[in-house]
Parts: sequence; structure tokens; C-alpha cells
Amino acid sequence: MPVSLVTSRRTRRTFYTARVEEQGVSAYTVYNHMLLPAAFRSLEDDYWHLVEHVQLWDVGCERQVELKGPDAARLAQAMTPRDLGRAVVGQCLYAPLVDEGGGVINDPVILKLAEDRFWLSIADSDVLLWAKGLAFGLGLDVTVREPDVCPLAVQGPKADDVMAAVFGDDVRAIRFFRFAVLEFRGHPLVVARSGWSKQGGFEVYADDAGVGLALWDALWEAGQPFNIGPGCPNLIERIEGGLLSYGNDILYGENPYECGLDKFCNLDRPIEFLGRAALEKIAAEGVTRKIRGLRIDGDPLLPAAEPWPVLGAGRRIGEVRSAVWSPRLEANIANAMIGRDFWPAGTQVEVEMPGGVVTATIADLPFV
Amino acid sequence: MPVSLVTSRRTRRTFYTARVEEQGVSAYTVYNHMLLPAAFRSLEDDYWHLVEHVQLWDVGCERQVELKGPDAARLAQAMTPRDLGRAVVGQCLYAPLVDEGGGVINDPVILKLAEDRFWLSIADSDVLLWAKGLAFGLGLDVTVREPDVCPLAVQGPKADDVMAAVFGDDVRAIRFFRFAVLEFRGHPLVVARSGWSKQGGFEVYADDAGVGLALWDALWEAGQPFNIGPGCPNLIERIEGGLLSYGNDILYGENPYECGLDKFCNLDRPIEFLGRAALEKIAAEGVTRKIRGLRIDGDPLLPAAEPWPVLGAGRRIGEVRSAVWSPRLEANIANAMIGRDFWPAGTQVEVEMPGGVVTATIADLPFV
Repeated sequence: MPVSLVTSRRTRRTFYTARVEEQGVSAYTVYNHMLLPAAFRSLEDDYWHLVEHVQLWDVGCERQVELKGPDAARLAQAMTPRDLGRAVVGQCLYAPLVDEGGGVINDPVILKLAEDRFWLSIADSDVLLWAKGLAFGLGLDVTVREPDVCPLAVQGPKADDVMAAVFGDDVRAIRFFRFAVLEFRGHPLVVARSGWSKQGGFEVYADDAGVGLALWDALWEAGQPFNIGPGCPNLIERIEGGLLSYGNDILYGENPYECGLDKFCNLDRPIEFLGRAALEKIAAEGVTRKIRGLRIDGDPLLPAAEPWPVLGAGRRIGEVRSAVWSPRLEANIANAMIGRDFWPAGTQVEVEMPGGVVTATIADLPFV
Repeated sequence: MPVSLVTSRRTRRTFYTARVEEQGVSAYTVYNHMLLPAAFRSLEDDYWHLVEHVQLWDVGCERQVELKGPDAARLAQAMTPRDLGRAVVGQCLYAPLVDEGGGVINDPVILKLAEDRFWLSIADSDVLLWAKGLAFGLGLDVTVREPDVCPLAVQGPKADDVMAAVFGDDVRAIRFFRFAVLEFRGHPLVVARSGWSKQGGFEVYADDAGVGLALWDALWEAGQPFNIGPGCPNLIERIEGGLLSYGNDILYGENPYECGLDKFCNLDRPIEFLGRAALEKIAAEGVTRKIRGLRIDGDPLLPAAEPWPVLGAGRRIGEVRSAVWSPRLEANIANAMIGRDFWPAGTQVEVEMPGGVVTATIADLPFV
């Protein structure tokens, strides 16, 4: 339900904001103190276009926190329970960041640019301050900064063809969650096969406003035969695909096990990170709630900005975090934090929605 | 220029969001991952109402970072060049926070709740992560957390009367930038004489959603004889009054001297804070740019979301950070970062605005 947003210098514009305005962006959200397009046509029109064609996304708000220097690898590892020791240069690693209590404070994709240089491509919280505070406090020899990099995402089933038209066929060889440095008009750019959809595609890490705009235009031009359109992370597609959103599905301080991120907690490896003792205790004891899928009965719902209570056996046993009508599944689907007794798929529960209480069924993630 | 905002769980609602919606909020901004009302009627109508009557502001987005424990005072001092050593319990202190390079990372009001307990009432950046990172890295014995406190501001010349009607005449005795703990229906609340306007007033730090809503309603009721209205920080009033906005006027990493915050840098005191060496160097060398006032000629302008270049002697010598038409001064006024040669009040410069280049004059702050 869009309301009005007053923008100012504080809600920073990206390299591409002028272009998305020309393309008729109809709503924004604010992410990392920056404008993130949230809709162009309807949520459903944007969805079908994304899954059938290809879209250009202004994700300049995916800010990079750069760690550089002799202790860069040590600092990166200190922040996450995922083992980064075996990562190679050119690899992208999804990695929850946890604090000393094991609580998630962000869930970036980490790009290993060199043995002593990393970019944390972050979700919506100031990891820059966290990393700087840690580095200073621990006395590490590392420079932490936010370079002015604005990623541009090309997402959708036709993304390879559009990217190949601009960068050449080399892009086709980039494997999933790997990146290469490719030239665009003589300017080297990090090009990763990644992005916040399950439709395939790339993220190009533009580090110069002029180059970024020229790249937008070149991709737009090259995309014409492929029905390219402007787009943005799509609520329907990302809930269907099981992508969790930090700040929506994962709240500050919840632990990775509650968020289903068990496989990114490599407690069996001899790695040093802040929340190790806390996570070992949590892993040993098990968690009492977890994010589960939910199919909610009834008419197509409107996305909610408030948590809807989930009821089971007459009491509150959880809450809906994100929910949407899926036109593909012809069902209301949701991510919900659910108490342990109600985890099995198929369990019947109820949801207190603004219009009244409706029945719902626990489901496995992803939905699609 | 409002555009649409898509809200979600990530753009958190405050204790009062339901009330501001009932009161017809016409636009929001997002601040500390939370909704901050940005307009009710027009900017100008809201302005006149604020300076003539009294307004209730939902500033729940002014999040509190609580430092508690034996090392709380040490951590608080480590973050700011302002001497906190002489502060007394019950005092509010405006204090820029700086990193190890002397760059501003936030400019909170610090409330000293006890010798070992502080609230940092923050501007728009995740000071929670910064403070936690430092505390962990430095091995300090302090608990850092964000309690769910949603400040409610009563601002305007009639604020004392409205507050006294709810809290009793004790509130009248609270001095500027001091707080008292007063009871509202048996619930103790921190009540400070402070707020982000120059019209006088209070901020009440509600720490419970139910109490907060009841307080909103009680103040609303008590305010009826005083023509109370819903309001929010007002761009006209705050630029007139010389209030700087972190993220708009003060950008991440700029130093306090560039931002005119010299008097909050107590380098002559034997205090220990992160950026001490950096600020000593900057203070000794002097800065080459500084925030200055600017009167911009021409028709009433529309607030800008982009920096407008300021030109002097044929070259770029600065940029406009915030600008607005002041109906009181019948002039366009602005905060601008300006190069040293052009600091004197009365200096003629030019501004590259969207509609063309216009003349402007350097002015002292505040305007009113």
C-alpha cells in the first residue's frame, strides 16, 4: 500500500535514479539510506515480466563495505560463522553476519576480490560502522570503507543474451556465484552471476557514475530484442523462491538457525568468529522457533507492513513476516516465524489478519 | 517532491503510526529503518502552525542506543570529542560521534540516565552496530542494545501548557536540555526539554507501546484548547533555526569543524576518544570548507534531493545541502558546504539549479 515519500539528500540517489524515473518508477523504498525502486507497473505485471523476459534493476542501494589490508580476511571471518577459508578469488559467498550473541546483523554476499580485499554486498544495515568498530577495537590492520559502487542487476531468463550482447560471450562462462572482471568501454567492472531473484542473471558492480549510466543505456539498448524492462526485487517472486529479506523476515538479533541458515554455520571448522560460543550453545540446545512457509486461505491478500499473529491450539505460536498473493500458485504465500510444535508441513494454523482470522497451512520453503 | 513509498516490515512502524495515519499524514520519510512523518498539510501550513501553536510529533525513529554497565561512560566518551566527564544525571548533551579519522558518523543527543547508563538518541545511522563493534573489540564491560523506546515530541510555543495539563506543573521546571522522570498513569517516563525545532518543547521517551498510545491520546485531548495539531520536523523551521541534519547537511565522514561543531570538540580537556589524533591535526591545520548559510535569489524553490553546485570566481567552490523557501524571510535559504575563500557573509556566489544558474549570497547561520 504505497504512501508518499519525501526524498532528500539523506535518501541518497543512485547512479541510475534518473533512468528509473524516466522509465516510470511508481514507488520506492529506502534501503541503506538510498532509493530502491519498489514498483514500475503492478506487482503482478512486474512479476510476470521478470519470470518471462529480462529486467534491469537499480540496486545501487546494495552498498559495498570494502575490507582491505593484511587483516581483511581475519576481519571478514570474524563477522560470519560461514567458513571463508576455502573461498577463492572470484567467488561470491552468501554469509550471515552475527554479533557476539549469535544474532544476525546483516546477510551480505561477500565477494573475494583478492586475498587481502573483500566486498560485503550488504542488506539494509550499516555494516560499515560495525566493521569499522570491530577493526578499531580489535586493533586490526585493515581499511574499512564504503566505495561508491552502485550494482546494476540484469535478472530474468533472457539475462545471458542481453549481457553477452554488451560484454561478449565471456559472460556466459561465469558460473553461479562467481564473478569475473570484464571490460565495458575500456573500464574494468566486476560482473557476478548473482542477484536477488531465482530467475538467473547478473550483477554488475559499477564503480563510476558515468560508466554506470552508459552501461544502463547499453544494456537497455541491447535488451530491446529481448523485451527488456525496468524492474526491481519482486515480492511475489522472492517469496515463491524462498529468498529471505533482512529486516522483513529476519529481524535484528535473531540467530541463523531460527532463520534456516544452518548450512552457513560451519561450527565444525576451526574458524574464529564473534558469535562462536553463542552459536555452539544454540546449536546444541536447538531452537524453539523457525521461519517456515505458510499458505494462507482466502481471497488475495494485500502485503502487510505489520506482523500478523499466527495462532495454533488457541494461542499465539508465531507471526507472519512477509506475505503476498502468488498468481502462479493461485494462493496466498508467506514467510512466518513459527514455534517448534507447529513446524511440520501440513499443520493447520490460523492467522489474525486485518479483516479477521483465517485458516492457514504450514509449508516447506521454497514454494516454487 | 513526494513520490510513492512502499512500506513493509523493514520500514518499521512506531508506537504512533496508527495515530498519524488517522491524523492524515500525507508523506513519510524513512529514518533509522522506521517511518518518520514528513508532512501533514503543506510544508508551509505545517510551518506556521508549528511556530504559532503546538504540535505532536511521532519521532519514534529517534532510536535509543543504550550503554549500560561499568564501562558505559568510558564507551560513551570514546565515541565523542565532547567532554562528558562533567555531565550530571538528568542532562541531555548534543554530541557529534566521530570515528578514528575524526569523521562524523552520527550526532545524537546523549541522555545521562545514571553514572553507568546512557541513551544515545540518534540521527539516521546504525550507532547500535558501531557501539557494539567498539565495545566488543575493546573488550569493554558494557551492554549495548536498542530498547524499544519511541520518543514523542511536543513542540511549539504552547508546549508547556499542553504538557503541564498532562504531567502537572513539574514539567515547567525542567530546564533546557535537562530531563526528569515523571509519571503518566503510574508509569515513569523520561521527559526532556528538547526537540528538533527552535520553538521550544519536550520529548517524552515512551518505552511501552500501550503507554505511548495512551500518552498520545492524552496530549491530543489536553492540546485541544491550544490548537494542537499533528506535525513533524519541518524543513523551513529547521533551516531557519540553523539545525543541521545528519545525512543531508552533514555527510558521513565529514569532520565536526567542517560542520561548525567546533564547540563540541573539547580537545583542551584530557578526554579519551577515538578520533583525538585526527581532530587535533585538523584543528591545527584548519579546514578548507565549512557549512555556511546561503540566500538564493529568484522565485520560491522546491527542495532538492540532489546537491546543487555552488560556483564562485568561475569554478565550483561548494554545494547546496538543504534548501527551502522561507515564507517568514520571503527568501530562499539554504545550508551549503563552502570553500574557505568564500566564507564571509555577503560574498556573492552562484548556484547551479535545475532551472539554470542563479545568484546567491553567503549568510551566517542561523537565519532566524
